[in-house]
Amino acid sequence: MCEANVYLIDKEGNEKLLLESVDKLVPSDESIMLENIFSQRKTVKARIKEMALVEHRIVLEEKD
Amino acid sequence: MCEANVYLIDKEGNEKLLLESVDKLVPSDESIMLENIFSQRKTVKARIKEMALVEHRIVLEEKD
Repeated sequence: MCEANVYLIDKEGNEKLLLESVDKLVPSDESIMLENIFSQRKTVKARIKEMALVEHRIVLEEKD
Repeated sequence: MCEANVYLIDKEGNEKLLLESVDKLVPSDESIMLENIFSQRKTVKARIKEMALVEHRIVLEEKD
């Protein structure tokens, strides 16, 4: 399976795991909707900072 | 391997394959840098429309 773990860097610069095994990401103007393979969903006010799919790693950056 | 194929929807609404086997995506304000597992790079003026990692599919939308 090729899902990724999604990490969020908060406004203080700290990185934390936001959601594991994410399959779908749908950005909108203000936020990003994440859904993982267990059908858990999260929506965060953030932008995508970088993605490294082979490492199963996506990093988001919190925004105002 | 968990790379994805990246598709671009142009301003006319047509979808085409932009780059296969993409590992890294790094968005900036204006554009997105893609790099695949063969170290091929492309930078496009686009935004991420949706990602479905289990389907190995990322869709970008061209912007002005």
